[in-house]
Amino acid sequence: MFMRIDKLQAELPAPKRADPNAAAALQELLGGKYGEMSTLGNYMFQSFNFRSKAKLRPFYSLVAAITAEELGHVELVSNGVAMLANGPDVPDGDKGDGGDISNAPFEEMKDIRNAAAFLSGAGGAMPVNSNGVSWNNDFITSTGNIVVDLLHNFHLECGARLHKLRVYETLTDPTGREVCGYLLVRGSVHAHAYALALRKITGVDLDKFLPTPNIPLSKIPECQKYLDEGSHRRLYTFSPDDYKEMAGIWGNGEVALPDDPPGELEVIDGHPDGGKIAQLVGVPSAFTPDYAPEEMFEIASKLYKASR
Amino acid sequence: MFMRIDKLQAELPAPKRADPNAAAALQELLGGKYGEMSTLGNYMFQSFNFRSKAKLRPFYSLVAAITAEELGHVELVSNGVAMLANGPDVPDGDKGDGGDISNAPFEEMKDIRNAAAFLSGAGGAMPVNSNGVSWNNDFITSTGNIVVDLLHNFHLECGARLHKLRVYETLTDPTGREVCGYLLVRGSVHAHAYALALRKITGVDLDKFLPTPNIPLSKIPECQKYLDEGSHRRLYTFSPDDYKEMAGIWGNGEVALPDDPPGELEVIDGHPDGGKIAQLVGVPSAFTPDYAPEEMFEIASKLYKASR
Amino acid sequence: MFMRIDKLQAELPAPKRADPNAAAALQELLGGKYGEMSTLGNYMFQSFNFRSKAKLRPFYSLVAAITAEELGHVELVSNGVAMLANGPDVPDGDKGDGGDISNAPFEEMKDIRNAAAFLSGAGGAMPVNSNGVSWNNDFITSTGNIVVDLLHNFHLECGARLHKLRVYETLTDPTGREVCGYLLVRGSVHAHAYALALRKITGVDLDKFLPTPNIPLSKIPECQKYLDEGSHRRLYTFSPDDYKEMAGIWGNGEVALPDDPPGELEVIDGHPDGGKIAQLVGVPSAFTPDYAPEEMFEIASKLYKASR
Amino acid sequence: MFMRIDKLQAELPAPKRADPNAAAALQELLGGKYGEMSTLGNYMFQSFNFRSKAKLRPFYSLVAAITAEELGHVELVSNGVAMLANGPDVPDGDKGDGGDISNAPFEEMKDIRNAAAFLSGAGGAMPVNSNGVSWNNDFITSTGNIVVDLLHNFHLECGARLHKLRVYETLTDPTGREVCGYLLVRGSVHAHAYALALRKITGVDLDKFLPTPNIPLSKIPECQKYLDEGSHRRLYTFSPDDYKEMAGIWGNGEVALPDDPPGELEVIDGHPDGGKIAQLVGVPSAFTPDYAPEEMFEIASKLYKASR
Amino acid sequence: MFMRIDKLQAELPAPKRADPNAAAALQELLGGKYGEMSTLGNYMFQSFNFRSKAKLRPFYSLVAAITAEELGHVELVSNGVAMLANGPDVPDGDKGDGGDISNAPFEEMKDIRNAAAFLSGAGGAMPVNSNGVSWNNDFITSTGNIVVDLLHNFHLECGARLHKLRVYETLTDPTGREVCGYLLVRGSVHAHAYALALRKITGVDLDKFLPTPNIPLSKIPECQKYLDEGSHRRLYTFSPDDYKEMAGIWGNGEVALPDDPPGELEVIDGHPDGGKIAQLVGVPSAFTPDYAPEEMFEIASKLYKASR
Amino acid sequence: MFMRIDKLQAELPAPKRADPNAAAALQELLGGKYGEMSTLGNYMFQSFNFRSKAKLRPFYSLVAAITAEELGHVELVSNGVAMLANGPDVPDGDKGDGGDISNAPFEEMKDIRNAAAFLSGAGGAMPVNSNGVSWNNDFITSTGNIVVDLLHNFHLECGARLHKLRVYETLTDPTGREVCGYLLVRGSVHAHAYALALRKITGVDLDKFLPTPNIPLSKIPECQKYLDEGSHRRLYTFSPDDYKEMAGIWGNGEVALPDDPPGELEVIDGHPDGGKIAQLVGVPSAFTPDYAPEEMFEIASKLYKASR
Repeated sequence: MFMRIDKLQAELPAPKRADPNAAAALQELLGGKYGEMSTLGNYMFQSFNFRSKAKLRPFYSLVAAITAEELGHVELVSNGVAMLANGPDVPDGDKGDGGDISNAPFEEMKDIRNAAAFLSGAGGAMPVNSNGVSWNNDFITSTGNIVVDLLHNFHLECGARLHKLRVYETLTDPTGREVCGYLLVRGSVHAHAYALALRKITGVDLDKFLPTPNIPLSKIPECQKYLDEGSHRRLYTFSPDDYKEMAGIWGNGEVALPDDPPGELEVIDGHPDGGKIAQLVGVPSAFTPDYAPEEMFEIASKLYKASR
Repeated sequence: MFMRIDKLQAELPAPKRADPNAAAALQELLGGKYGEMSTLGNYMFQSFNFRSKAKLRPFYSLVAAITAEELGHVELVSNGVAMLANGPDVPDGDKGDGGDISNAPFEEMKDIRNAAAFLSGAGGAMPVNSNGVSWNNDFITSTGNIVVDLLHNFHLECGARLHKLRVYETLTDPTGREVCGYLLVRGSVHAHAYALALRKITGVDLDKFLPTPNIPLSKIPECQKYLDEGSHRRLYTFSPDDYKEMAGIWGNGEVALPDDPPGELEVIDGHPDGGKIAQLVGVPSAFTPDYAPEEMFEIASKLYKASR
Repeated sequence: MFMRIDKLQAELPAPKRADPNAAAALQELLGGKYGEMSTLGNYMFQSFNFRSKAKLRPFYSLVAAITAEELGHVELVSNGVAMLANGPDVPDGDKGDGGDISNAPFEEMKDIRNAAAFLSGAGGAMPVNSNGVSWNNDFITSTGNIVVDLLHNFHLECGARLHKLRVYETLTDPTGREVCGYLLVRGSVHAHAYALALRKITGVDLDKFLPTPNIPLSKIPECQKYLDEGSHRRLYTFSPDDYKEMAGIWGNGEVALPDDPPGELEVIDGHPDGGKIAQLVGVPSAFTPDYAPEEMFEIASKLYKASR
Repeated sequence: MFMRIDKLQAELPAPKRADPNAAAALQELLGGKYGEMSTLGNYMFQSFNFRSKAKLRPFYSLVAAITAEELGHVELVSNGVAMLANGPDVPDGDKGDGGDISNAPFEEMKDIRNAAAFLSGAGGAMPVNSNGVSWNNDFITSTGNIVVDLLHNFHLECGARLHKLRVYETLTDPTGREVCGYLLVRGSVHAHAYALALRKITGVDLDKFLPTPNIPLSKIPECQKYLDEGSHRRLYTFSPDDYKEMAGIWGNGEVALPDDPPGELEVIDGHPDGGKIAQLVGVPSAFTPDYAPEEMFEIASKLYKASR
Repeated sequence: MFMRIDKLQAELPAPKRADPNAAAALQELLGGKYGEMSTLGNYMFQSFNFRSKAKLRPFYSLVAAITAEELGHVELVSNGVAMLANGPDVPDGDKGDGGDISNAPFEEMKDIRNAAAFLSGAGGAMPVNSNGVSWNNDFITSTGNIVVDLLHNFHLECGARLHKLRVYETLTDPTGREVCGYLLVRGSVHAHAYALALRKITGVDLDKFLPTPNIPLSKIPECQKYLDEGSHRRLYTFSPDDYKEMAGIWGNGEVALPDDPPGELEVIDGHPDGGKIAQLVGVPSAFTPDYAPEEMFEIASKLYKASR
Repeated sequence: MFMRIDKLQAELPAPKRADPNAAAALQELLGGKYGEMSTLGNYMFQSFNFRSKAKLRPFYSLVAAITAEELGHVELVSNGVAMLANGPDVPDGDKGDGGDISNAPFEEMKDIRNAAAFLSGAGGAMPVNSNGVSWNNDFITSTGNIVVDLLHNFHLECGARLHKLRVYETLTDPTGREVCGYLLVRGSVHAHAYALALRKITGVDLDKFLPTPNIPLSKIPECQKYLDEGSHRRLYTFSPDDYKEMAGIWGNGEVALPDDPPGELEVIDGHPDGGKIAQLVGVPSAFTPDYAPEEMFEIASKLYKASR
């Protein structure tokens, strides 16, 4: 079972301006080969299909808890995409009458890379890559064999780190850069965690691969705040009461990677504080939430009061 | 952000025997056109892309909370698939040495419909339909327009109900039938909720379409227990503190559908009690969790103790 | 623009029994590599994209008119699929109350090859192949170059003939065999027509390739009736007034292929007589048209009267 | 069976200039989620798979006749795409020798969004979306259940209207805008028709949803001419003799939607007058119809004479 | 550049009988997630895209040479598939006249899992999985980063070994089992080679993961012959003169894995002896090579003589 | 079995500058409809699935040998793509420390057409088309029927020639133009060869179709060198000893096409000289081969010495 909290795992700064191609680049981190849909899909189905859960509790708990974190990563990237495509929230969008739509007000959308994202999705996020090609089952590995699955996951987090770095290198807007910075720190945690899990089983010190690519997080300014907080040493259970057994793998005397600020690894019950979710103020002339939404706003206002 | 709880939304009875074709049929409810991946994907991305959240809070909360429930539906069907493909849990699987694999011990898997599910996934669930074809972005609608999205969702829940009924009609095993029974009740709740949301906005009494297809839930024995509990009148927030505003839509004097046991609709904070998750005892000769997993079990046992 | 006539191009005998795997085999002729969706898609888009139509009128007319015939082929195969999956029409389907659905009345559908066709489509036809994999744009060639397009079409009809023969060899039911017999004759006409078109342009006697595969139509009993009628010598304009100019290619002194009954080729204005469309009587327990459709039948009956 | 008429359903003005990105945007209305391939595919297969046709004649006729209209919509959008990609017809294209191709005459095609459309298709239309991703079976719903199918269709037409509006907002060229204007009016008719069909069966006044998005057609200048003609009140049978029974649903005292010019709904036998199809004059240096096509034109001219 | 030799890498015993479902199971090793198309595609594109080849010669040579071996694996599995689908070679197939095709001679093909393989491909191999779903670009990783690519490759070979084992467990026919036995030995070599390559760069002893799954090759009777030959200690350059530099990684004092027969690793110039390719005698009634191929055989015989 | 030689079939000039959109255009010749992956895939699987090889040796040899050449074409286009995306080789890439990645050094990659090619593949080639859509099994025809397969291949080479011409017309950079020039000559050879093979079997002089499109190779400056060498008259066996029997088809008195430099056709044992492969010097700030690769270069240097 899953619960939801109306916050993002990290606070995202508002975008400076609408930049649909930047939003499309960020889509690579959502629906691309190594995107968050892929990490989520892998761990989610591995946790559903996990064999002999009781006998392998610490490993099961690790995969199950990271699944919950990945849901928040999908959410974070999706919010980043929608914010970049939409631009900064403005109080009232276009005029109450929806604006005059007959003069090609969105002519520039004709030339963006992921035109379908505007035409069909009004700039919202979708599980596609930076070219609008869909994520699908081919990105999931769930073999039922613990070593193969964990090894796959370790490689996946290394590959994802590489792609996060490249997307970061294309972005100037603070919204997208913050998404990358946060995910780089958390992805390093996951890579480290899978390395430790495999080391426990096989004795092979996979953590020596890290960081791959071999650039320390400290070189990315947007990572600094999270390193200062010690985010790189923490795994959250993302659960009210479960998954604590992963402390046998993450913790238990293990410490931070050599390039990162030192300290012991620790499992934190629950979830990080996180940040607020953007409004994504609608644009009536793009029919979001509709062309003349005032009446709808009024109805919602009454329903809101009735719910209190 | 999302949290996870190590239980299923409903208790599933153990399967009588391994039945890979039944598991494959159930896959239609996971990765098929109207499967749970589709309902999840639609509501999840709609909630991420939702415009003017503050002004439309009750509608946003409704979509956001149902998203969390759908995650549990994906989990429930996935567990059902893996249980049906694996058969009943037996204490020790095959012998500690993994069994002799040289005499085609899985010859019968050569003739099942979704052979890839065994060969690549050891009978685990994947986001594919009953023929092994992948779920993908084409099954998602997230237009940014509230009325179009809600109307799509209403139609989706009606279609999903139809397909749940058809899958149910092919299954004799209690595991799969329970999955269908539970989902039929919860799917009816979602259809009803979207109908009410649209009625609030448009004044059109879409709830009169229900039930579609026009067969009352009471004709399905596996639904009875959930009707008796009043599940058909409850929407859970699936959140510690958020999404209560949907009570302006679900509740607020609204009552159960005419064919169902009467009573007021109510929003419940949090989540249902749910049931335990099956062990899915590994089968070493199928390399789950590995061919000779004893050492791994010992390691896990030590790590478990260290985590306490 | 297109018009529709409520008849099939050929009369299909009723199936002996429901045979979902035979229906699935026939799907190869609908959505498979060389299926009717492919021939339709190729000629339709070629005709839409045709360059310098006035200067190349006979060639344009040929492609445009065959497009219209292919629409009827898609319809014919689709009807064959639905008939085979549904079985013979029976006057009343299951009882008015829809039958008891709680005893797995469709258990045998769990084991059919294209399970999704029943679960999602109630046995209807869809643009997929015999394994349930979708037809798509990759099956279309529309290059804007007349010689390449016509050469592609000639090869396509030869390939399609091969696949029709193989599907025919798997079927015992008269419905599917009639579909194959009719399409074999018409496909031969199209192959012949494209060969003649290319011969006019290049001087190469491509018609000498025919028949490919090199088996005369007279060896297939189901083709005999159509050969006797002279169907192999006729191209229909499938239009009230247009496309007659293809007579410069088909006709104009050209004669039937050597293996077929002799005679001149002729363009026929309009369309063949065709045959009636099956009722596909609904099965309420499969929710077609619904679980308890009596009221719907009454409403339809009143609306029907109002329309007269 | 289908017939073809060598005209478009609406007259399209010539484009001002070649604009491949505008052509690509228009592709969203052809092969995108809610494009004309989707409406066509849905209604076509629903009509082929329709159960108990005789008992549900008015509903069958409605779906069957709209299928024929949708074929013309696919044709109309396809022509618009090819015209925008090709630019205005010029009498002789490049010189008879095909032009010198060695100086990168199409260098600018290197940077267009849908480059494959030029490289493989010479700017012709294909069943893909605005990013070149293929339409496929996942866009089709044909459940065999009348209420679910009609509800789906109603939602589909609302979604299609939304996307037509957004594509319209990106276009400045008269060709593409005319396509959108015409389709907006006709799409409104179809949404209205499905709403009425469902109202007849369920009593729910779905027509109150219209227009969705809630912008009247009168705000789109390109729609005005069609509203003046009364196109919004007409459904054509698109058949010489069949499908008249839909008058029980469309007509029978029903009137135009409140925002549109008033009047009774009426079924028209046959088809609208329509407009002529563009020549799409070939460009030899792009090998359309070929590099040095003069000989081919001469041959065609002789064959044309022979056909008269 | 690539050269071809008209032999298989291993001699395959003739199948006992035609078994299309066994052929389809073997397809998982061709076009499935971890099939030979995937290993080929990964290494081939990695070798094409390899950065700074001169400076990283031993690593480049390793990937480039294994690419050539994988081509032979694709060939080997493909031959296995076609042999299993076709059955044992018989001298003359059906009678010279092609046999009577009118009595459903291939009726049993109606019920096989991968029906499209017969209907479209006459039982030949295709790059699809055991359910007929296509291999595609999503199975390829080529990041340009050596560590990520090599780590991916190491995981890929472990996963492929798992799937080879499962396919092996479903097969009784000697042809398919031999394919699996040979590939298991060669896959182990590749996994070992990538482990060594990564150990050279990172110092991490990844070879301790092997064998994964942890079953020694000696438990598979079909592997014994290849172990006896020392195949597990050999990497071939598969080149007349190039790629010898991989001896810095494979060789250079490294020895066989602990579970396998002991000895030093060695790079062998060129290729193994291999075995002959099956005739795949045609079946005229299935139109392979055609319905009445005698004339074609005569022509070929004359051309053969002319070529000598 | 296949062997590999560390050279390209033709020498490619260095690119003038990095041009990702030109690289993407060239991708159409790799993974597009008529790209080299398609020609390779068709001939490779046809050769694996070839029936009655001994009796049809000259035809089998032709398809088998051309397969080997196509592997080199895939390699050639891939190298061209990577060179165009990467730009000219520079001795040391960015500084040894990898450069500062925090100032969006790849901002311009945000706006390229195939953004995924940079973000996931660092500008390497992949089996996708110019829009990043994957090549797949739908592009393969392998029917088991010799005439259909050869006819398909003939059409494929004509279509491929058309697309090579169009890609050529968009490129100004010498690298991409050389790729096109070389492939145009070799593609003409293949079209000619398949025409001759079919003429031998059927007597139809398909070679009269050539060249299609009807522009002589002499009009393309980049082809001239290859014509001068006589490349248009040569088929290579691409084998140490096999496939010589195709001389019964290519040779045996046959001569060059009328538009090309005259002379007899000849089969050449082995392969052309070819040209060297570009270094593709890594860019550390793009993590190719890594961020600070010096240590890796040193390790490789030692391993290289150890291999000598």
